[in-house]
Amino acid sequence: MSTENRRIDIRAGVMARNDASASRIRAVLERNRILGINIISSPGAGKTTLLESLGGRLGPELAVIEGDVRTRRDADRLISLGIRAWQIETGGACHLDAPSVEAAIEGLELDGMGNRFLVVENVGNLICPSSYYLGEHLKTGMLSLPEGDDKILKYPALFSSIDLLLMSKIDLGACMDFDVERAEAECRSINPGVRIIRVSARSGEGMGELESFFRAKHAEVYG
Amino acid sequence: MSTENRRIDIRAGVMARNDASASRIRAVLERNRILGINIISSPGAGKTTLLESLGGRLGPELAVIEGDVRTRRDADRLISLGIRAWQIETGGACHLDAPSVEAAIEGLELDGMGNRFLVVENVGNLICPSSYYLGEHLKTGMLSLPEGDDKILKYPALFSSIDLLLMSKIDLGACMDFDVERAEAECRSINPGVRIIRVSARSGEGMGELESFFRAKHAEVYG
Repeated sequence: MSTENRRIDIRAGVMARNDASASRIRAVLERNRILGINIISSPGAGKTTLLESLGGRLGPELAVIEGDVRTRRDADRLISLGIRAWQIETGGACHLDAPSVEAAIEGLELDGMGNRFLVVENVGNLICPSSYYLGEHLKTGMLSLPEGDDKILKYPALFSSIDLLLMSKIDLGACMDFDVERAEAECRSINPGVRIIRVSARSGEGMGELESFFRAKHAEVYG
Repeated sequence: MSTENRRIDIRAGVMARNDASASRIRAVLERNRILGINIISSPGAGKTTLLESLGGRLGPELAVIEGDVRTRRDADRLISLGIRAWQIETGGACHLDAPSVEAAIEGLELDGMGNRFLVVENVGNLICPSSYYLGEHLKTGMLSLPEGDDKILKYPALFSSIDLLLMSKIDLGACMDFDVERAEAECRSINPGVRIIRVSARSGEGMGELESFFRAKHAEVYG
């Protein structure tokens, strides 16, 4: 077998194992009537800060799985606020795959705990995490204003495949030269059905809309 | 052979081919007395804006290879300013490897053009690009203030292996809750020899220091 064929063979095996694991994750979520949300962004776009704010709104309804290459900093931040959180340290891997999330869900012990929303905060990376289905109901991309308004078409694999786009750090508009309409239009051009919400965890803008959207989606899935 | 062994085998082959190509890149640089600089950061940390500013200082001494998953936006920005630039679109790959840079160097035609500095702007990603040596003299990491002051220890593979750390968008300090000393101390804790320069392409802060550092390094390498 050629090296190229061996590579394709291994890749297909990895993805098949990933998707089988994602199906088991989905079954755990459905058994517990939990909405699964996978959030993907660059490093520092504000995922953890958003979750701190969301925790204040959802309280014990929220559980979080944190993905980072190294450190337990993000989970520790959430746990200190009383949010149920579990840290995955990938140790070099640039994305979360379903088997690692499945193991984390066992650690979190979702069964019978009454959570209604499980947010998986992926490793900070706009490229690799996009390929791995984690059993989620909502694939979410986040783009923060300081990253620049030219990023949507640079990372089309992610932004064309998400259900929800969060335009984050919207309170920094006054400091930034960022054309929000341009970025949103570019996202809609490759992803016509995407829902877009402008948020700032710091100012609170959009957080109520985000909470309402998650609750409506939960009702849509579980009635 | 087990799947795991096949994976290691393929990975070793990829890296051997990468490093052989990087050696050829280094030979082209040395033949032309060009300093090679590889810049790695998150999406939107300000790499291209920095290069626009640097182009104003270095003029025809500067040549640039741009790496992006998609679009020619970054190279077009530089070319419109009269900077010699070549765009690599990786089409999904999350990093630049040496063979792609070697091909771009052929496109740029460095031989005899009088450039003294070749900057390779890597794909926006703090993880994967760190593993690929591109024949550069200076491996450079960039962290922008909006990304947050907790990022150094989250991405240790990059920040422990760089020669130069650029703390970018330093002019946004007033808008951000970012402890510059903390981030710099964390970088030095895993990389004692690292040179750190605080820069803002927008305000110009640190750009003279960066130019001087590049010129001094050029003199150190080529006399």
